[in-house]
Amino acid sequence: MSEKGTQISEFGKYGLISHLTSDFKPVNKSTVKGTGDDAAIIENGKKMTLVSTDLLLEGIHFNLIYTPMKHLGYKTVIRAISDIYAMNGTPEQLLVSLGISSRFSVEQIEEFYEGISLACIKYKTDLAGGDTTSSVTGLTISVTAVGSAEKGNIIRRDTARPNDLICVTGDFGASFMGLQLLERERRLYEKDKNIQPDLSGYDYVAGRQLKPEFPAAVLQELAGAGIKPTAMIDVTEGLASDLIQICRSSGTGCRIFYSRIPVDYETGKAAEEFNIDPITPALNGGEDYELLFSVALEDAERIKQLKSVKVIGHMTAPGTGYFIAGDDGSEVELTAQGWSGRK
Amino acid sequence: MSEKGTQISEFGKYGLISHLTSDFKPVNKSTVKGTGDDAAIIENGKKMTLVSTDLLLEGIHFNLIYTPMKHLGYKTVIRAISDIYAMNGTPEQLLVSLGISSRFSVEQIEEFYEGISLACIKYKTDLAGGDTTSSVTGLTISVTAVGSAEKGNIIRRDTARPNDLICVTGDFGASFMGLQLLERERRLYEKDKNIQPDLSGYDYVAGRQLKPEFPAAVLQELAGAGIKPTAMIDVTEGLASDLIQICRSSGTGCRIFYSRIPVDYETGKAAEEFNIDPITPALNGGEDYELLFSVALEDAERIKQLKSVKVIGHMTAPGTGYFIAGDDGSEVELTAQGWSGRK
Repeated sequence: MSEKGTQISEFGKYGLISHLTSDFKPVNKSTVKGTGDDAAIIENGKKMTLVSTDLLLEGIHFNLIYTPMKHLGYKTVIRAISDIYAMNGTPEQLLVSLGISSRFSVEQIEEFYEGISLACIKYKTDLAGGDTTSSVTGLTISVTAVGSAEKGNIIRRDTARPNDLICVTGDFGASFMGLQLLERERRLYEKDKNIQPDLSGYDYVAGRQLKPEFPAAVLQELAGAGIKPTAMIDVTEGLASDLIQICRSSGTGCRIFYSRIPVDYETGKAAEEFNIDPITPALNGGEDYELLFSVALEDAERIKQLKSVKVIGHMTAPGTGYFIAGDDGSEVELTAQGWSGRK
Repeated sequence: MSEKGTQISEFGKYGLISHLTSDFKPVNKSTVKGTGDDAAIIENGKKMTLVSTDLLLEGIHFNLIYTPMKHLGYKTVIRAISDIYAMNGTPEQLLVSLGISSRFSVEQIEEFYEGISLACIKYKTDLAGGDTTSSVTGLTISVTAVGSAEKGNIIRRDTARPNDLICVTGDFGASFMGLQLLERERRLYEKDKNIQPDLSGYDYVAGRQLKPEFPAAVLQELAGAGIKPTAMIDVTEGLASDLIQICRSSGTGCRIFYSRIPVDYETGKAAEEFNIDPITPALNGGEDYELLFSVALEDAERIKQLKSVKVIGHMTAPGTGYFIAGDDGSEVELTAQGWSGRK
């Protein structure tokens, strides 16, 4: 193949796919929403079917030196259902296809499926299909999640409005710092095989990287409190990147506040060890598997009652940019991370 | 990773996935049929949603030395919608995810999407999602097809009965012989870069490998003739392997007849050049993208009226094995090809 032509790195992640798919026009009336959101929306009478797909490659999305196969299976499910929850849907089915090189034993693949099974049970999702194929290059995982939602309940990315409050669940940057620690231990181990990995004091961040959960219960809390977010996304690329994605789709600007971004103690401690500001992994780390959503200003009082949700800023008028404000009033522009190896 | 444990090659292709997924029990009532058929069946009131997924890896499923990117995009769509048609459904949406190494230019990926677009238009299917991710190992394609069918119209693999007639569309072995010719030209070219590939007289078999079509119209012909097949599958693994798959799922045996297997003239000519019996690629080649189905004996007269369908044998009682009979009355047992590189 030729190396000539436009480099793919010239496009951002979201830029490339929208460039490639912008000319496709749906012809089936069941296609309500095609490319450009967390999941495809397919109409079936009153109920809507949501479908999303993910591709996970060894050496890009996971490293088997420190990732147990069972955790990898579990995380594969979380990653897939995350896209369905992000539309306010309920995941119901999963299809998992594997490309497996001869390096793997059946027992290892069984462990992977054990992890799939554990997550399926916990998140009440059925394995409903998939396949295995041989591979020359390690492990490749393709996962499709199917879910459902009532027509009026779906929450898209492109419907945030100026002045809406920007809300998040959980905390940010932990998974990324967990990955840095695991990578550091791997490098030490490769230099000296007698060294035992030492992650003491970092159980939380390592766990967030290796076996994440999804805050599905928050969707019920929101419904219970009578709050319907105006737009929603799951944070997998990074808080900044996913927030900008909502803003671009909705045509809004945003202001978030440095001091309000939730960061766990361990994330801060690990960032200190690596001599970086914890806000960097929190904004750009990714793989947080948290919800990011906007709510109407009139829901302000009700949203503050929910302990699992934190308001971190607000949407602003179109064309006013994407900014994070410091305590001293200074403002820094948020940037979406481009095409990177670790996405 | 350890090389210890059970080798994956000890399982056949269908064997491994059923071994891995046999313990999964559906919990959602929308999950009508999980693993073990062409597509998952999901209930939405009267209509059923069908979902299938495929994973295509460079070096296993395609070789970019002789596969134009546009054809590859086209074939990706055929492969995906083939699983939906094989359930007697109508494909409506596609989700395509790509893993792309830095070796590829944006223009090459655009060509791939052009092929996707051409096939989507021809088969009235909407691109409704997907993503791109970076890869360290060439091109990886994950494709999910979503379709619909009326509840009573779905045709599964596990519902053939003894005495049903075994029917096929099109002809077999052409795609495999096309691949052999392309591979031969590749090897010649690698030895001497001045040699131009020569596929003259082999347009049909090369086309069947590089840019296959699917006989979707036959499903309408069957419906128009008032024939509902008792079981159906698309032939992608190989006629023998896919027939055995129907038999195993349905608990039947089968007898097919050597002289009735449709083989194109070019397939025979190519087989002769390679000094093999054309029945071998016809039975075991795979990637034919034809329909294989069974119909009730009382439909015999009506099925013979359909020019695009050929009866090649019949289902037999449970436990009577899977056989192909020669003109001289001799019988040879059919075998499902095991785990192989080219599947």
